[in-house]
Amino acid sequence: MAEELQTSIKDLEAAVTKQGDTVRSLKASLKDGKAQKADVDAAIEQLKQLKIKLASTQKALEDAIGKPSGTSKEAFRAAMVNTLERRMFYIPSFKIYGSVAGFYDFGPPGCAIKQNVTQYWRQHFVLEENMLEVECPAVTPEVVLKASGHVDRFTDFMVADAKTGDCHRADHLLEAHLEALLEDNKNPLTPEKREEVRDTLARVEELSAEQLGAALTQYGVKAPDTKNDITAPYPFNLMFKTSIGPRGDLTGYLRPETAQGIFVNFRDLLYYNGGKLPFAAAQIGQSYRNEIAPRAGLLRVREFTQAEIEHFCNPSDKSHPKFQAIAGVTPLLYSRELQMGAEKLAKPMSLREAVAGGIIANQTLAYFIGRTYLFMTKIGINPLRLRFRQHLQHEMAHYAEDCWDAEVESSYGWVECAGLADRSAYDLRAHATKSKQDLAAREKFAEPRMMDVVVTTVNKQVIGKTFKRDAKAIQEALEQLGEDDALCLKADLEAGKAATVTVEGHAWPITPAMVKIDKVEKKVSSRTFIPSVIEPSFGIGRILYCMFEHCYYARDNDDKRAVFSFTPVVAPVKATVFPLLQKAELNEHAERISASLTAAGLANTVDTTGNTIGRRYARTDEIGVPFAVTVDFQTLADNTVTMRERDTTAQVRVPVPEVPQLLRQLSDMTTTWQTVQDRYPAQQQPADDEA
Amino acid sequence: MAEELQTSIKDLEAAVTKQGDTVRSLKASLKDGKAQKADVDAAIEQLKQLKIKLASTQKALEDAIGKPSGTSKEAFRAAMVNTLERRMFYIPSFKIYGSVAGFYDFGPPGCAIKQNVTQYWRQHFVLEENMLEVECPAVTPEVVLKASGHVDRFTDFMVADAKTGDCHRADHLLEAHLEALLEDNKNPLTPEKREEVRDTLARVEELSAEQLGAALTQYGVKAPDTKNDITAPYPFNLMFKTSIGPRGDLTGYLRPETAQGIFVNFRDLLYYNGGKLPFAAAQIGQSYRNEIAPRAGLLRVREFTQAEIEHFCNPSDKSHPKFQAIAGVTPLLYSRELQMGAEKLAKPMSLREAVAGGIIANQTLAYFIGRTYLFMTKIGINPLRLRFRQHLQHEMAHYAEDCWDAEVESSYGWVECAGLADRSAYDLRAHATKSKQDLAAREKFAEPRMMDVVVTTVNKQVIGKTFKRDAKAIQEALEQLGEDDALCLKADLEAGKAATVTVEGHAWPITPAMVKIDKVEKKVSSRTFIPSVIEPSFGIGRILYCMFEHCYYARDNDDKRAVFSFTPVVAPVKATVFPLLQKAELNEHAERISASLTAAGLANTVDTTGNTIGRRYARTDEIGVPFAVTVDFQTLADNTVTMRERDTTAQVRVPVPEVPQLLRQLSDMTTTWQTVQDRYPAQQQPADDEA
Repeated sequence: MAEELQTSIKDLEAAVTKQGDTVRSLKASLKDGKAQKADVDAAIEQLKQLKIKLASTQKALEDAIGKPSGTSKEAFRAAMVNTLERRMFYIPSFKIYGSVAGFYDFGPPGCAIKQNVTQYWRQHFVLEENMLEVECPAVTPEVVLKASGHVDRFTDFMVADAKTGDCHRADHLLEAHLEALLEDNKNPLTPEKREEVRDTLARVEELSAEQLGAALTQYGVKAPDTKNDITAPYPFNLMFKTSIGPRGDLTGYLRPETAQGIFVNFRDLLYYNGGKLPFAAAQIGQSYRNEIAPRAGLLRVREFTQAEIEHFCNPSDKSHPKFQAIAGVTPLLYSRELQMGAEKLAKPMSLREAVAGGIIANQTLAYFIGRTYLFMTKIGINPLRLRFRQHLQHEMAHYAEDCWDAEVESSYGWVECAGLADRSAYDLRAHATKSKQDLAAREKFAEPRMMDVVVTTVNKQVIGKTFKRDAKAIQEALEQLGEDDALCLKADLEAGKAATVTVEGHAWPITPAMVKIDKVEKKVSSRTFIPSVIEPSFGIGRILYCMFEHCYYARDNDDKRAVFSFTPVVAPVKATVFPLLQKAELNEHAERISASLTAAGLANTVDTTGNTIGRRYARTDEIGVPFAVTVDFQTLADNTVTMRERDTTAQVRVPVPEVPQLLRQLSDMTTTWQTVQDRYPAQQQPADDEA
Repeated sequence: MAEELQTSIKDLEAAVTKQGDTVRSLKASLKDGKAQKADVDAAIEQLKQLKIKLASTQKALEDAIGKPSGTSKEAFRAAMVNTLERRMFYIPSFKIYGSVAGFYDFGPPGCAIKQNVTQYWRQHFVLEENMLEVECPAVTPEVVLKASGHVDRFTDFMVADAKTGDCHRADHLLEAHLEALLEDNKNPLTPEKREEVRDTLARVEELSAEQLGAALTQYGVKAPDTKNDITAPYPFNLMFKTSIGPRGDLTGYLRPETAQGIFVNFRDLLYYNGGKLPFAAAQIGQSYRNEIAPRAGLLRVREFTQAEIEHFCNPSDKSHPKFQAIAGVTPLLYSRELQMGAEKLAKPMSLREAVAGGIIANQTLAYFIGRTYLFMTKIGINPLRLRFRQHLQHEMAHYAEDCWDAEVESSYGWVECAGLADRSAYDLRAHATKSKQDLAAREKFAEPRMMDVVVTTVNKQVIGKTFKRDAKAIQEALEQLGEDDALCLKADLEAGKAATVTVEGHAWPITPAMVKIDKVEKKVSSRTFIPSVIEPSFGIGRILYCMFEHCYYARDNDDKRAVFSFTPVVAPVKATVFPLLQKAELNEHAERISASLTAAGLANTVDTTGNTIGRRYARTDEIGVPFAVTVDFQTLADNTVTMRERDTTAQVRVPVPEVPQLLRQLSDMTTTWQTVQDRYPAQQQPADDEA
């Protein structure tokens, strides 16, 4: 149903736009006397009806998929962030010193949730798949990030305020300016101009520094706040730079991603795995990006937690042994085709179908998309607001085979929370070249095979004469070319095209006299290759933020009664223990039960304040405690307590000795509240429950 | 018994030294003809006997407390580190690029152990004590570390090779030189010189730059390797420096400790805790120190994991509500008095006795010493090789009230693994002053009380005239003086001494005309104060390393059969599942059991290689897997398996459905192997078990 409603909305939006244009042109014709007042009025009425229908359909969709009302996105966010900061889920860092943009501290409930999510990630991915988990330092010597390309290319374009020197992201400035033009009702754009602005807006992220500069000049963009002129855009490297050791001559950076730590360890990991492929390695840790203009709370920060997987496999076999287990999973897929289509809507599709139809490049990539879907929904992301968006061809690096982003809808729009990419052999090849270490894997055939083998024979004399002192490096580069690269070079040479080989970023011209490349048939019993890498990469902070939005609601639509409906596995505190009244004997029971929960490893709190039980529930609702255990006078008689579930507010009566085990199962989500309700007698809510 | 042996060893060591001197002086007298050859021979024989006795006593002590033989420390360490690196517990980072000193990667088993230890730390400290856990960024703006004193004072003294520019730690160079002098048997020192060198050696850490420089010159210390001259020592700040944001004008550092993140959040944390004291906050995270000369593997690195607790309490009440729970714990305490004594030996003492005798300053500090003892021993640190050493008066910062280090004996000697310090109100006061924020807590009295209150009245006119533009800051500093500081100032002024007040590190002279400080009796219902901080701070990497040493042994004294006797809670893999032979039906059973363990959150591996079961056990011994489950032909008949414990190699027979729950309890250490042996029938080891 949600899907149909989404289609209707797209249709209605298109109709509203079209009718708006009609009204405008009728109005123009009215001045020229080419149209009647009555026609204009009728068109306006039609537009009004369309807008009403659009609004009600949007509301129906929101009710269906549980997302906040579109018109009150900002209000929704403000209320939620207020609760988050007030209850210290996260707060700006270094507050007493006025804070620094892009840094957040996680307070007690946020810290607990973050651990629960990373711990569940570990259980879901590392433990279930027997991945090799590693932990590498954040401080990284330059050579590693030179090889990976980050030193040269990990940049955003920046402009500075010509007078104050304040820095801004060039793309953000342009976007804000263009959006303001589109929304400016006082000075409406002509339809042609509108089209042009929309088109530029859609392409902002693809623009080069020169193109961005031209657009900023064309639209006369000034610095925000000051309205001063701005400089031309220039690249700013986003890595934090430092110096390692006392001499000051060893440059280091804080890693911009955790992945490189895995790549540089590939050889040892392969050995650890008994030389066998495929295998996956994983790392959870802090990464650092010195963002030019951090914004949108936890979504764009300068220090954040990543959880990354590098799955190494044979480039000629990207099947996955456990693919069948997730082939029936049906996430919303937003393929290239659907993005280019008229509807611009993601559609549910089974992964079996997506692989069979060639929409997802291979089983392994699809397998991780399925596992990611299961992970995200288990921790409380609404599956109807989670889509997998395929990168368009121009978004992908040249070496990438296929990329999909897990995007979650939030009040900020669709947020990239995880990226899943088939990066081919790019990363390992880059490190093999730079480090001059062998990062290949060996595939042993069951039977020797006759195979085409590429043999590269270098003419040392010609190369030596031509390149002098660079000759040795160029010769090595030629000899170490992968089969594919060698065949490309051969083809270029034979076609008489300009051919080159690249050594540390410099391309040297190669002529047919320098190298002979042949395909020879040989009997071989094994072959070596640089493995392909399939990389699922998760931004934990973004996932947390989106989860907060999806879990937040107001009980009985009362704005003062905020609730986070965290799933039990994620909830920071699993249970609160309440004595019904402030009596010593009830308090003692409560403390004993609390101690038994602590011993079972269950985070819990006792609330012995004299507040009404309703008020005490409200406080635990705000940090999303899923279960409450209440000690009442009946407890003294029969050693049972009531247990209440947060979202249904339903209660059952449970013998005290069974409480820890039951809460353990509920928290691990190995049992459900429904099962508990079936098993234990219901408890009528006392009159003051919600007082 | 261990204690008696240690006393004997100290006595014997002293006797050997003394007898050595006797032999040397007799030999000298022999040349002068003042002694007989027979006397010399007798003295040498006596020395030999003493040495033999010392060696055998050392061996007896080692047997008693399970530490490796003193004479083969290096061999022991080499064998262990070989196993650790080969099985990828940890390896030098960035190996393919030649590594950078002071950085290590944790591979799969090391990573798992590290998580288990930090997770257990969280359970033992945070959950049990309801601490407020936070997570703050590592990148920290300069102002925070300026306030804490790190920007000005977090330094080591460095000397450079005058020719090559290579850097060395001045204290390490001096120590190495002096130790070499003492050990140089070819050029023995005179007894007086020996005494002088020993004395200097004991004081190296206390020397100022000038004193270090003088000592280096006096002893003619040269650069190691090159033997070039060295520069005079100068301070080198150990923080990694970086720049935050695109403008380049905001200096940041990587935090050298996690504690500051807690201090700057104190106000919010106090509010979170309902304004109530005492409470503790905790943080686990990476800290960074740009060591001049990293060494000793994991013991001195540039990036490491800390787990820190800041317990905030009323300075006038440092009792602890749960003190009785640990009062009977009896760790080895190495008090100031024992360190100054002749024996120089730590002694077991109950914490009750230590607090009652004024040896440990207060209950809260003692409580954390007790909890630290329980933590360390639970994760596998040998309690006889764990001592708590009190800081000598000159080792402590001026503001510290009492400090104890948890030291663990390793092949490198006694290693500081945790520090427990009563830091008074120093940190909060420093941040309150720098940030000009109120970081006080309020104590509300049950009944209003008559109390002496210190009233500070400032003569604005005199201060204004004297200090001009600095007057305002000085006036504020005077008004904000704590009661104790105000009374000190009053005493100094009345005694006619030079009195000062400090503003941002600068001390301004104060005269009696500028300020009037009075003690007035007043009826008050509450008072505000800056809380005291008691800080237990743990270095996770050092704890791991010492744990590795204490757990490592060779089975049956066979060097090729390395075992790590990790406690189940720490072990990286809880169980291995073996099919007895490579048969499809046994393999299937094994895979099913493995899946049931994974579902129960138990890290496990299946070994279906065709190796003998003995060889397979050996491989799991090397990574310290505590339990093995073997599927054999009886499994097919009655659905039972054998379960084997690593250190005893005893086996029992357990029904398959009970395996996950049983292993869960063994891994959480809520049950013991002894209990399991009592409950299940013993299994005779098959003949090939250890084959």
